[in-house]
Amino acid sequence: MKTLNISQLLKSQPLEHVEIKGWVRTFRANRFIALNDGSSLHNIQCVVDFENTDESILKRITTGAAVSITGELIESQGKGQNVEINVKKLEILGDSDPETYPIQPKKHSFEFLRENAHLRTRTNTFSAVMRLRSSLSFAVHKYFNDNGFNYMHTPIITGSDAEGAGEMFRVSTLDQKNPPLTESGEVDHSKNFFGKDTNLTVSGQLEAETYAMSLGKVYTFGPTFRAENSNTSRHLSEFWMIEPEVAFMDLAGNMDLAEDFMKSVINYVLEHNKDDIEFLNNRLLDEDKTKPQAERNELSLIEKLNFVVENNFKRVSYTEAIDILRNSKPNKKKKFNYLIEEWGADLQSEHERFLVEKHFKCPVILFDYPANIKAFYMRLNEDGKTVRAMDILFPGIGEIVGGSQREERLDVLKEKMAVLDISEEELWWYLDLRKYGTAVHSGFGLGFERLVMFVTGMTNIRDVIPYPRTPQNAEF
Amino acid sequence: MKTLNISQLLKSQPLEHVEIKGWVRTFRANRFIALNDGSSLHNIQCVVDFENTDESILKRITTGAAVSITGELIESQGKGQNVEINVKKLEILGDSDPETYPIQPKKHSFEFLRENAHLRTRTNTFSAVMRLRSSLSFAVHKYFNDNGFNYMHTPIITGSDAEGAGEMFRVSTLDQKNPPLTESGEVDHSKNFFGKDTNLTVSGQLEAETYAMSLGKVYTFGPTFRAENSNTSRHLSEFWMIEPEVAFMDLAGNMDLAEDFMKSVINYVLEHNKDDIEFLNNRLLDEDKTKPQAERNELSLIEKLNFVVENNFKRVSYTEAIDILRNSKPNKKKKFNYLIEEWGADLQSEHERFLVEKHFKCPVILFDYPANIKAFYMRLNEDGKTVRAMDILFPGIGEIVGGSQREERLDVLKEKMAVLDISEEELWWYLDLRKYGTAVHSGFGLGFERLVMFVTGMTNIRDVIPYPRTPQNAEF
Repeated sequence: MKTLNISQLLKSQPLEHVEIKGWVRTFRANRFIALNDGSSLHNIQCVVDFENTDESILKRITTGAAVSITGELIESQGKGQNVEINVKKLEILGDSDPETYPIQPKKHSFEFLRENAHLRTRTNTFSAVMRLRSSLSFAVHKYFNDNGFNYMHTPIITGSDAEGAGEMFRVSTLDQKNPPLTESGEVDHSKNFFGKDTNLTVSGQLEAETYAMSLGKVYTFGPTFRAENSNTSRHLSEFWMIEPEVAFMDLAGNMDLAEDFMKSVINYVLEHNKDDIEFLNNRLLDEDKTKPQAERNELSLIEKLNFVVENNFKRVSYTEAIDILRNSKPNKKKKFNYLIEEWGADLQSEHERFLVEKHFKCPVILFDYPANIKAFYMRLNEDGKTVRAMDILFPGIGEIVGGSQREERLDVLKEKMAVLDISEEELWWYLDLRKYGTAVHSGFGLGFERLVMFVTGMTNIRDVIPYPRTPQNAEF
Repeated sequence: MKTLNISQLLKSQPLEHVEIKGWVRTFRANRFIALNDGSSLHNIQCVVDFENTDESILKRITTGAAVSITGELIESQGKGQNVEINVKKLEILGDSDPETYPIQPKKHSFEFLRENAHLRTRTNTFSAVMRLRSSLSFAVHKYFNDNGFNYMHTPIITGSDAEGAGEMFRVSTLDQKNPPLTESGEVDHSKNFFGKDTNLTVSGQLEAETYAMSLGKVYTFGPTFRAENSNTSRHLSEFWMIEPEVAFMDLAGNMDLAEDFMKSVINYVLEHNKDDIEFLNNRLLDEDKTKPQAERNELSLIEKLNFVVENNFKRVSYTEAIDILRNSKPNKKKKFNYLIEEWGADLQSEHERFLVEKHFKCPVILFDYPANIKAFYMRLNEDGKTVRAMDILFPGIGEIVGGSQREERLDVLKEKMAVLDISEEELWWYLDLRKYGTAVHSGFGLGFERLVMFVTGMTNIRDVIPYPRTPQNAEF
């Protein structure tokens, strides 16, 4: 007999004999066990014949205990469920001392649960979040696989520090206290594991470009790192990034791809994770009720997801956006923290959210940014001052995707690198792509945790990754 | 008009107007371009009307050049292809100087291609290998998703050094030359980024157990690291590992899962990557022809893959295996490098391959190993001397999967940790799993590159990952 899990049992017709193992979420009236095995947000109700069960066993049916139950699956007598299990036999597999077990059936603060991150998926909220994270991951792989992309594992340890996306962590096997020194008194990296100074990657893009220029369509989905002292609810030191890269695709194609991709993965979870999304939707509605009207969300979680799926993303040039922002009410009434005064200003989250939530009322793709606020590898426009960059802005979250058409012209790229003092010697292989069969190509990057935040409605990035790494914290 | 790629065109009926971009693989007789865009192993033949094409353009149609072609897709006049493109218009997008372009249309050594790893997927062999790597990755995700597993991203940077699977790389932001010291003269990790000494993970298993004990079925698929000075064709310093972990599953269930999983992912690529596998199969057959009879492979690549898919994996206890090996011909004739003399010996690759290839002639699962040659977290058997470990052995490669039922009893686990001097304080969260609702659970680990080697027939692990990291090498 194939054992059914709780998710399957809840949809099943009555069955004479079922066996199930799981963890007790609650036990009330000495009779009703709410049992969960992780397969679903929902528990199955198991009804214990307490009059014929040893007191010593009943006492051990506590929140968090692992139990094995055999019995009959019957139509439920009570409200709130279709079926329940009439318990014939119950075995305690692992006790859970109610005096010390941290995850009691009550509301815990997210901060408390972060300190108990090894147990927090035993709550409804975190099991829903992590099931959604998993489902979104699969949706990402499925989208790219269905569309002819090759998944590429770019290196995590890198000898290059030219990626320029941020501060890096050093990777070393040298003695920390007394590193070997060269004759001139510098750290002798020839003695280091890789024979040179190495760091953790900040992006797989440059390597992804090498594969795009042979396999055509590729994407990465792997961990990236920032050694920045940003202790905010939006930054992690270790996070997962998705970076597609496509040969012969220009910026317009890049926008099409990104829009189609975002809609597709969100649609996937709307379809496959209804229960988890509905639970998180209601959690946020309940939370909103405790807030003053002005601080409540305009859209519910599900409305926000549908907002993205159902609307065309509005494509607006940076120059147009600056005009709109300059003439906007919050700018004129000096409500923005950073006032928009002239072309060239870097946009802040408040500006991005104004454009999406107030002005256009749909997701927005900004493009053609000033060259000097963007990375060296972006394709310079004919105007000589803007680059073919794009950022996608979402409601509530601001920038969620950043991408560009890449500079495919060897001479222009070299010039840019010289100005920014990026070593040609170090990126010889990157320059080779422009020497041998260069062509238009484009790609974008999506911080996966930002996407999980958007889909789950969680507001602290530490709550959408199993074990967050942040300044001063690498617990578990 | 949606643009078709070469893979699609090769299967298409004649079409009046097609547009295609790609890279020139060869150009012969001033007339026939073999064009590749990465979508397929196969090139499409593009026939140039050389009499009406500028000499200056013809000269630039060189191996590696990127071109854009419009023309008519017609039934091929020649042999070797069904369709070809009658070129109407050809544009050179990016030149490739034949004097300096490293990837010429001839046989290059794998060593040379490793030095040009940024260009090696422009060859048939490496494009086939990397497409298979991508396809296998998807098969992994699909298998687990279809079977109700949750994908979990376990942390890469870890504050723990208790995992015990090997030497670790240090991750740090301290000054390398003059690290801050404590009063007692030790490196002051309170000043380090995470407030403590941190390393790169060697395994996500312990964290995966935390999620298995709440979500039921989980798996990891992420990079892991070993700072070991192993410069062999089977070891990488950075590699990708797959680690499923399942609650309420015992060792027999673990074997069932591993066997079903391995067969499923290999079946997936046999079905979806016929062309690439056939190409690699023939490559190996050709290579074999250059070797003396004794060194040739007994099975072709495709035969080896079918061998795994079609055979039941033979389950044999370590104790039985030792008996078989002790009484085997190569042991009696002292042909093994390491002779098997008594129970307790650690098995070498030669013994594993003997069992698979000579004795049982099918994949083998060895189980119930001596406790003292296995990790601390494995479930001790009632005999007090063996643990519920399992290794899966494959033809040609030896061990490919290692797993176990985990020790779920708090007292036994603590005792084992005390003996091995593993800090309880550091693994408090791991011990919590045995305090609160403990239950039988199991899992295994599969080095992804070993699987890619097996499926592609590549014999050097550096050739199955885009940018290998090995001692003294972190290029690209």
